[in-house]
Amino acid sequence: MLTRILTQGPIPRVEIARRTGLSQAAVTKAVAPLIEAGFVTDQPSPAAVDEPVESRSELGIGRPVSPLTVVAESISVIGLKVTPTDLIGVITDLRAGIQATRHQPLPDTSAETVIQQLAVLAKEMMDSISEPAGPLIGIGVAVSGDVDSRHGVVRDSPFMGWRDVPVAALLTEELGVPVLVENDVRALTIAEHWFGVGVNADSFAVVTIGSGVGCGLYINGEVVSGAHGVSGELGHLPLAPGDLVCTCGRRGCVETAASSDAILARVRETTGRPELDLSGAIQLAHEGDEHAREAFDRAGEVIGSALAAMVNLVGPELVVIAGEGVADYDLYDQRMRQAFAAHAFGAAGDCRLMLRSHTFDNWARGAAATVIRAYVRSQPPFNR
Amino acid sequence: MLTRILTQGPIPRVEIARRTGLSQAAVTKAVAPLIEAGFVTDQPSPAAVDEPVESRSELGIGRPVSPLTVVAESISVIGLKVTPTDLIGVITDLRAGIQATRHQPLPDTSAETVIQQLAVLAKEMMDSISEPAGPLIGIGVAVSGDVDSRHGVVRDSPFMGWRDVPVAALLTEELGVPVLVENDVRALTIAEHWFGVGVNADSFAVVTIGSGVGCGLYINGEVVSGAHGVSGELGHLPLAPGDLVCTCGRRGCVETAASSDAILARVRETTGRPELDLSGAIQLAHEGDEHAREAFDRAGEVIGSALAAMVNLVGPELVVIAGEGVADYDLYDQRMRQAFAAHAFGAAGDCRLMLRSHTFDNWARGAAATVIRAYVRSQPPFNR
Repeated sequence: MLTRILTQGPIPRVEIARRTGLSQAAVTKAVAPLIEAGFVTDQPSPAAVDEPVESRSELGIGRPVSPLTVVAESISVIGLKVTPTDLIGVITDLRAGIQATRHQPLPDTSAETVIQQLAVLAKEMMDSISEPAGPLIGIGVAVSGDVDSRHGVVRDSPFMGWRDVPVAALLTEELGVPVLVENDVRALTIAEHWFGVGVNADSFAVVTIGSGVGCGLYINGEVVSGAHGVSGELGHLPLAPGDLVCTCGRRGCVETAASSDAILARVRETTGRPELDLSGAIQLAHEGDEHAREAFDRAGEVIGSALAAMVNLVGPELVVIAGEGVADYDLYDQRMRQAFAAHAFGAAGDCRLMLRSHTFDNWARGAAATVIRAYVRSQPPFNR
Repeated sequence: MLTRILTQGPIPRVEIARRTGLSQAAVTKAVAPLIEAGFVTDQPSPAAVDEPVESRSELGIGRPVSPLTVVAESISVIGLKVTPTDLIGVITDLRAGIQATRHQPLPDTSAETVIQQLAVLAKEMMDSISEPAGPLIGIGVAVSGDVDSRHGVVRDSPFMGWRDVPVAALLTEELGVPVLVENDVRALTIAEHWFGVGVNADSFAVVTIGSGVGCGLYINGEVVSGAHGVSGELGHLPLAPGDLVCTCGRRGCVETAASSDAILARVRETTGRPELDLSGAIQLAHEGDEHAREAFDRAGEVIGSALAAMVNLVGPELVVIAGEGVADYDLYDQRMRQAFAAHAFGAAGDCRLMLRSHTFDNWARGAAATVIRAYVRSQPPFNR
């Protein structure tokens, strides 16, 4: 019930009854404790009070309609995204609306350092939460790689160089609040499902391009988590030309041609300029340098093939392209679309491709959305 | 309720109540019309009557337990599989148990000829159904390629050379019974989900190897159908070496190295023996001919990479390998497993790989299972 009001609200009781097949009395009964607890309200918002009464009585039942809506400020959540160079933290409300943001550089990527820095950052953010923001319910942490979210363990994160780090247990002990850990792309997909483009899509994929290439899938009513906790590893499909070794240790992965590091390495090699950094390589490509463009073309081609592979397998209605690489999307765009069109099978290619501007805060918001979802569904660690 | 009894029965009312959260009275009430209609029985089977009473009263409620079970012979279904050279038909009961089988060679693959031959075969089979078999409820047709099952149209079947053939409408008009059309691999996946290995798996994939390479996916409680009707096109992931043109017109598809035609073409080319047929090529490989083995190795490698791509994306618990190519699985096996292990990402590789011996009758049974599922769920064309 709370899920429905959260993702579809403001929504009148009668509409919930229609969509769920419950009686209106049953809806009223189910909603009462949520109103009692302060998560939901049926009071008109201050803005609505100013509206003429006519617009509030659309259903024509002769009195102002008070649709149910969540009280966004009833709780606070902290979402943290871990990258090899920085921690990004956001405080959100129950609707995953970002209330505050903090960034903190990392001295190194060792699990010990990062856990300690995460604890410091989280404590600062916890201390900063004050009225009217609601009490903190929990902290979400988003990390790339193979994450066992059920046990809160990062099993294998090539980017961080981590193996079997029990992030949730370590941070819960330190902070005394529930901590959830999730694969970063899956966290982003959960956020899109509950609070983004996914609310109205029967199936969708979120593809992220940047320092890695990832993919979150929403199919048959749920985010795909993988029987063994691995799914959406689009960056590790064996689709790249040549036989370069990936950060994961395997050969031929998409990321060996399409990650920002791979693109930079290629530009350095073909231009003979080992001092270039990524923004230098991007600038060269924008200036039309042949070698720099070739590296982005190559990345675009491999990403397009990977997108085609994904839609041929799962056929989503919508593909959202996000990630920090989206800022320079014009450099991949043409080859990516060509390769996609060349390999998408029949009607699978009819899915909508949508670009999503993206900052690192979005990743952290995904981590917060993961906590909100578990809380609203009363899933661990929020069993009620 | 019928779905549960069909896929999990024989099952006592009390167990259905436990699994559904309904009261036992509610279960009894829901089951009554099914018993009335003859689909379900709570009478002990003749075999059970002979058992000592003790074993029939496991629940200790002092009288023989009569678990609910479907009456398999309450209905009949016809399933038809279309291949470029033959039609394969089965008659099944409500449990998808095969009661009769017919094969019929095709003079050509034109839609006109095949529809006419399907009608002839179906009529013969309809005439052959007699007591104690139940009345025919409908006919399922399985075809490879892009099939719009909702509208009963084969949109694009490269193997058959068909485009936009309204199979269901044409056959329904001819035969006067409901006709469902489904992608053949998806039909097989529906059969595994309801009547096979999938009954107890949270997620699984069926991968078929043979004249094509296909894949059916069961994720998050349902067979994946694709927003635009396309999914599981494992044979058309752009993973093959070189740049051969596929039967679908695209380049680099898995099937250009791994379909039985592709293997045969490769063996003919490398051995310089254009007169070889597939069984000749298989024999050569079994005898250890280097060229013939290389063609199978190559196929195995591409299939292994495709399997890895699929598990990296969707992470199923179980992968069932089926299809007529399974008969010569020993020729692919080693390279396939090597390539799979080389490219499966982290715990995704922990999925079980299971081999399923397979005949063309299985495809036809899948078509029948598709009809049974729609019937039991009261989905079109069986809206009640």
